Amino acid sequence: MLVMSSPSGAGKTTITRALLETDPDLSMSVSATTRPPRPGEVDGKDYYFIDKAKFEAMVEKGEFLEHAKVFDNYYGTPKAPVYDALAAGKDVLFDVDWQGARDLRHAARDDQMSIFILPPSHDELERRLYARAQDSDEVVKKRMAKAASEMSHWGEYDYIVVNENINESVAQVKAILTAERLKRNRQTGLPEFVQSMCGDEE
Amino acid sequence: MLVMSSPSGAGKTTITRALLETDPDLSMSVSATTRPPRPGEVDGKDYYFIDKAKFEAMVEKGEFLEHAKVFDNYYGTPKAPVYDALAAGKDVLFDVDWQGARDLRHAARDDQMSIFILPPSHDELERRLYARAQDSDEVVKKRMAKAASEMSHWGEYDYIVVNENINESVAQVKAILTAERLKRNRQTGLPEFVQSMCGDEE
Repeated sequence: MLVMSSPSGAGKTTITRALLETDPDLSMSVSATTRPPRPGEVDGKDYYFIDKAKFEAMVEKGEFLEHAKVFDNYYGTPKAPVYDALAAGKDVLFDVDWQGARDLRHAARDDQMSIFILPPSHDELERRLYARAQDSDEVVKKRMAKAASEMSHWGEYDYIVVNENINESVAQVKAILTAERLKRNRQTGLPEFVQSMCGDEE
Repeated sequence: MLVMSSPSGAGKTTITRALLETDPDLSMSVSATTRPPRPGEVDGKDYYFIDKAKFEAMVEKGEFLEHAKVFDNYYGTPKAPVYDALAAGKDVLFDVDWQGARDLRHAARDDQMSIFILPPSHDELERRLYARAQDSDEVVKKRMAKAASEMSHWGEYDYIVVNENINESVAQVKAILTAERLKRNRQTGLPEFVQSMCGDEE
């Protein structure tokens, strides 16, 4: 389980897309929500769009890894597709905020690691938010405040990637994935003659 | 501190050379020894060649991170160049056997991680040892026994790289280095505006 968080504007979506396109062993966790689909959003790809009754029934049956209510809408990570993917030998990528990351850490005792993506500077984040949204000063100010609140949790993550250059950041996140898969306790493809040796401490 | 071990024939020397050539932030720890230099060996590069009296005096003064006697010769890792390199912001690579790796773990409380390089199979290792040395069956058998004894310690390392293809193995070790440098508690280049946030748990 690879948990990735960042303030909006740091480049997480671009990095995520690049990872999923090039890494066949990685699959994305799709959230469920009760909010209506926006134009272009595809059910089962962007979100699982379900109604409130169904969502609450799933909560009741403990079918979410984590869930939260934002304004009037529920959002949550359904367990079943995550565990199906893990059982199929895939690594699963979670795009969640610091609260979601914390809930995942507590809910799922499975093998996890986490990455926080940071913008290179305060000014650059502000510039990106302006460039993206062409919003009013006030809206950008609100987003900056939200970003600051999100970023104050960088200390809860295993790895920190400062996204100065998107290609370099993608390469860094790929390196983290490669390295994590080479950790002794995750190795599944060791040569047979070595597996029979009493090397494993665990 | 990056500690790397492997049985001879697994490709560690080639991997080490490729790392040092391409990574300016990495420096190699050079061992001291009392054995005489072999043709082509350079003092201060392959080894620090010193006499027995000097070696014993250094042991006495606690100037080695680890040391051992093999047959009639001493081998050891002098502290000073390692700590000079670390102080200069370099990562230091140690090419040691499992015993040296264990001694380093106990001797140096500094930030360490370790990689074990494995050959892809028993037969392939045997083939490489034959190809390299053109030795008698008996010599190769002895080396295989030594390799088996070394490999039985793979469980004491953080990462395992199976060297099937040398380019892929070099890329994997580089990925491990990149990832380890991105770990939160090793990050030295975080943007200033983030450092001032109370994110660090430590």
